[in-house]
Amino acid sequence: MRIVVIGATGTIGKAVVTALAERHEVVPVAHSKGELRVDLAEPESVRGLFAKLGEVDAVVCAAGSAVFGALDKLTDQDFSLCLSNKLMGQVNVLRAAVPRLRDGGSITLTSGVLAREPTPGSAAISLVNSALEGFVAAAALEMPRGIRVNVVSPPWVRETLIKMGRDGAGGMPAAKVAAAYVASVEGRANGKVIDARVQQ
Amino acid sequence: MRIVVIGATGTIGKAVVTALAERHEVVPVAHSKGELRVDLAEPESVRGLFAKLGEVDAVVCAAGSAVFGALDKLTDQDFSLCLSNKLMGQVNVLRAAVPRLRDGGSITLTSGVLAREPTPGSAAISLVNSALEGFVAAAALEMPRGIRVNVVSPPWVRETLIKMGRDGAGGMPAAKVAAAYVASVEGRANGKVIDARVQQ
Repeated sequence: MRIVVIGATGTIGKAVVTALAERHEVVPVAHSKGELRVDLAEPESVRGLFAKLGEVDAVVCAAGSAVFGALDKLTDQDFSLCLSNKLMGQVNVLRAAVPRLRDGGSITLTSGVLAREPTPGSAAISLVNSALEGFVAAAALEMPRGIRVNVVSPPWVRETLIKMGRDGAGGMPAAKVAAAYVASVEGRANGKVIDARVQQ
Repeated sequence: MRIVVIGATGTIGKAVVTALAERHEVVPVAHSKGELRVDLAEPESVRGLFAKLGEVDAVVCAAGSAVFGALDKLTDQDFSLCLSNKLMGQVNVLRAAVPRLRDGGSITLTSGVLAREPTPGSAAISLVNSALEGFVAAAALEMPRGIRVNVVSPPWVRETLIKMGRDGAGGMPAAKVAAAYVASVEGRANGKVIDARVQQ
């Protein structure tokens, strides 16, 4: 399969590229490195990316920014960033990807554990992740030509926790998280939230 | 209790006002009728409303526009309207309401059955309703002074179906839906999605 991975240089994205490249042709896309770039916050950038790509069998998006912070400190701008980047960025990836996907192709987006297990400080991120899960379940009902769409919900990732200076022991290694994306691409799931903590 | 009802002239809002007015002082707010008005799509309008209100015991929002339509026909503007109106409008109601609420007060927002039971054409509405449910669960973890926050999920409302020229038999009468809002205001639920179909 020819598979586009958006966020290919991120912690999860790199692991997804490694896992998929064993059996597939991977087209890596990143925000600020490499040949193919995209700014998720800009609908024109997302559309421009897919206009350049030609036909593909699968699209994985492991990218998107959102803001963690106390609700009474979050600004209008913080919410705007969350909505335009991680939320609408991924919604727009799906909208732009459909016409480029071959019959029976798939789209895999990324939400996160805070959708269903909120914590103080997660109000904006929980909003975005829940929105993505509701959107994907609905969008799956309208996909043409056997195209499937799922959303992977990663837990805290070990490498991310270590980068944040925290104990990595509570996190899942990115390579294990990547298995959920591979399952979405290679399996039959459709319209599902794939919890990366559940072994695929 | 002194209770603000936003969307007081809508199908559900009117029924909520009627139910709450039996035992409480209701302050009705609408988009384009009456003394107190608000445009949910404008953060300044929401903040301006609460600046005028003084202290209240509860805020109910039964308002917010979103667009039903096939995913491949929804425009960027359709998504923007959904996000700025029903989603961020209600998020901003919560943010602006907290400082005006008395200790132990409550906020009740509105999602809808399409969050968890999507249908073709509901992609944008399912996104918004799911976002509200994720947001409320997270926001509840950060409320000060015993303030509670819930979201009511109404099914299709009988009066709305009839206005749309459809068979009202599949819908729930607005007066029954209103019971879920009363339960949120008068009960102890916190951080919950209150399914209006489940008898309160």
